[in-house]
Formats: sequence, C-alpha cells, structure tokens
Amino acid sequence: MLTPEQRERVEVVLVSPRNPLNIGAVARAMANFSFSRLTVVAPYEPHWREARSAVGAPDLLRHATEAATLSEAVAGCTFVAGTGTRTHRQPQQPVLLLPEAAPIFAKQTAAGRTALVFGPEKHGLTRDDLSWCHSLVEIPTDPRQPSMNLGQAAAVCLYELARHTISSPVAPLAPPTEPTSPSGALDRLAGLIEETMITAGYSPRAMQPANRHDLRLLLRRLAPSALDTRRMLGLFRRILYRLHQPSGRPER
Amino acid sequence: MLTPEQRERVEVVLVSPRNPLNIGAVARAMANFSFSRLTVVAPYEPHWREARSAVGAPDLLRHATEAATLSEAVAGCTFVAGTGTRTHRQPQQPVLLLPEAAPIFAKQTAAGRTALVFGPEKHGLTRDDLSWCHSLVEIPTDPRQPSMNLGQAAAVCLYELARHTISSPVAPLAPPTEPTSPSGALDRLAGLIEETMITAGYSPRAMQPANRHDLRLLLRRLAPSALDTRRMLGLFRRILYRLHQPSGRPER
Repeated sequence: MLTPEQRERVEVVLVSPRNPLNIGAVARAMANFSFSRLTVVAPYEPHWREARSAVGAPDLLRHATEAATLSEAVAGCTFVAGTGTRTHRQPQQPVLLLPEAAPIFAKQTAAGRTALVFGPEKHGLTRDDLSWCHSLVEIPTDPRQPSMNLGQAAAVCLYELARHTISSPVAPLAPPTEPTSPSGALDRLAGLIEETMITAGYSPRAMQPANRHDLRLLLRRLAPSALDTRRMLGLFRRILYRLHQPSGRPER
Repeated sequence: MLTPEQRERVEVVLVSPRNPLNIGAVARAMANFSFSRLTVVAPYEPHWREARSAVGAPDLLRHATEAATLSEAVAGCTFVAGTGTRTHRQPQQPVLLLPEAAPIFAKQTAAGRTALVFGPEKHGLTRDDLSWCHSLVEIPTDPRQPSMNLGQAAAVCLYELARHTISSPVAPLAPPTEPTSPSGALDRLAGLIEETMITAGYSPRAMQPANRHDLRLLLRRLAPSALDTRRMLGLFRRILYRLHQPSGRPER
C-alpha cells in the first residue's frame, strides 16, 4: 500500500523494548520491507547498547533515534497507530484489523508523517500509551494464542503496509484537503488547556492523570487541522495572558 | 484465504533448522494463526531437543513429526510450496509472490493436503529440495536486504494464508474435478521409471542425480491425477515384470 517514498515518512516506534534480539529482529524486518526510521522510547540502556552494537545490525538500527517519552517520539506525526493483538480490553479509539488498517495508514502517510507504535514485550502498549494513538491496529490472531512475538508482529505489520506496492504499483492517493496537526502540537494545546483550567480555578481535578488522558484522546478524536490547532493555541495563550494580569478583569 | 478446517490440512515443514529460537518462533507463529501440523526434516538433534523442551513451547511443537527426508515429509501432500525471498537464481518451477500465492494455496488446500516448506537458516532451500516443490513462493522484500529471519518469514507467510478468513469468511472453493497425486506416489513412479530405464539399459546416465532431479520436476509439472499416476505405476510395473523375465522377449 505504501510507495517507497511514503515508507520514508513512517516512524517505527518501540516503547521500552527489553530483549536485544527483538530490537534486532524489528530492525531487520524494517530493512526487509524498506522502512528506515526507527525510534526507541525509554529503552533499557544495556540491552539497547547490545542491540545497536550487534554483528550484522542494519544501518537503520545504528542511526535510530532515542526519545524519553512516546509524546516526544511522535511529536512530528499527524497519524499515530498503536499495535496490539486482541488483548486490549475496551480500547478508547477505533480498532482496525491489520488488513483494513493498511489502506487507511497509506492514505494518512500520503498526507504527512505517521507512526506505527509497538509496546514492550511483556504487556504491550498501556492505556496511557494508547492515548497518543489515533487508532489501534490489531493483528487478527487465534483467540487461544493471541499474543505475538515483537519481531514477528513487526514483520507482519510492515509486510502488510508494504504488501501491494512491491508487486503492483498503486495510483498515488490524493492527500486530504487540509493538513492535520502533528502530535506535538496537540500536546502543546493540551498543556495550554490544562494550564488555563488550573489558572482559572476551573476544577481541582483538572490535573488528575485521568483527565489529562481524556483530553489527549479528545483532541485526537477531533483531529483538528494544523490551522485549527494554531488558532486554538493562539486563543488559549491569549486567555492565559489575560488570566495572569494583576487585575484579572476582562478588557473593555 | 484458508478456513480453519483447511488450516488443519496444511503441513508446515522445516528442513534442517539449526536455531532452537527459530524453531520456537515458527511454532509460535503457527499457534498465532491457527496452524497445527509441524514436521521437521533431519533436524540437528541437540537443538531440536532444546526447542521442544523450551518453557512455553506450544503443544504443536511437542507433537511435531520428525522426518528423515523432505520426500518423506511431504509424501501425503498433493501440493508443495517452497519458500524463499528473491535469493533463488533461476528456479525451475513457477515463482509466485506471496500475495498472489495465497489464493492458489487455498484452492489446493481445499482439494487435498498441502505443505509450506522452509529451508535452513543459512542458505534456504537447495535446488534439490525445490525439486519436490510444485511452486516457489517468494516474500517480496527489498533487494538490498532480501533475506528474512526464519521465524519472521514463517509469521508473514502464515499471516497471509490466514489473512482473509479471520476477518471475513469466504465462500468455500470448489475442489478440482480430479484429485491430484500425493508427493509420495510421484516419488514411487519416479523410482519405477528409473528402475525401468536401468533394467532396459536405456542409458548409463539415467541414474545420475541431475536426471533424477529433472524427472521429479517433470512429474510435478505434469501434475498427473491420482488415477493417472496409478495407471502409470501399473504400466511400469508390468514393463519391469516383462523385462525381468528370462526370455526378455515380448509376449505374443
């Protein structure tokens, strides 16, 4: 589904991977299917060093980016897909089976940078991680053995994303009429809204993790355009400026 | 593409796998995508024992079949597909890219038992191994990094074979009008033809490996029906019987 040019705009993100063999396997699958951008979030340092320095590690692993948080890793992406294998209970965003997710992912990648996010080996992506994701992509697996090995799950996902263009070129997809907001802009907006709520004394509960979580999800569900997000950022900055003025009273 | 019932008729065959982790990974991918029949050909015994006794090894690995030769492993199969990743030079049978191979494999599996064969990690299937295969299935990979890890290649192939039926049931495929011959019957026929050539003094070169190889391929290309094969077996048995008679002269 993805053209070679589009594959360069896809960020493969591993959240806190543990096993160096798995990190190497993901990098190898990326090389097999012509993906080149790898970001690792908060890796366990000794294992991360071991994976990068392994004999035969592909160049993309040596040039991988390190990020402290998932928020930072996907800041430049306009579409973020988390992965899982039928183990998530009641996810809060649309769930797509991998075969049907591929064309949607391709369309989003025609319009901007995208990310495909894999969780840690033991438990996968947390509910909190998923609040940065626009969609949850599930590999359809047997309910008796739903959980896949990280390297194999990555190979299957990247194969599906690359699937069609390798054998038959597809017509380029028309980009959406308006560019959507990168994840980092949505995070800045969420931060400003939260600050506004606190400054305005809106609710003492505004700072609770559950509310931050809901706010992140809400903004991703709304999917504001880049222009909309800039406008809202401007509005909340203005509101905050006014709230911080000594008088605290509205202008006339 | 494959219904759950059909998946029970697919034999996954590993030829001389070396790495116990890879054997385990193949078994896990099989469990993820609801395949249950695993055969290992001439495994390296210590590694094979290690793989089978590993903590968390799926049941299908413990119940796997061991075979001395590929010929024996696929004897009951009417369609055998070898796997590779664009590394084979001039294969002698039809080469199918995985996405286009899946419906063909499904059709064959609706009619009889089939096998998907993976070669050893280092070099993949040999030219000799491939002479037992009706088709070569290639995973479309990047020419700069064509070679896949065994566990990941198996996951991708099994995902593609299972791909459609998990999310949307397909209409059952009509079986071909005539049952085709199992691999073992073709091997018996090849053996009889060879014995006939030798007994008849046809050619001193008839027993050379290259000729045996070509004969295997020829029979698979012809794809005789089970009835045709039985007829030919009968014919060659009769010829041999006559050739072994003291007089050696034709009956009147």
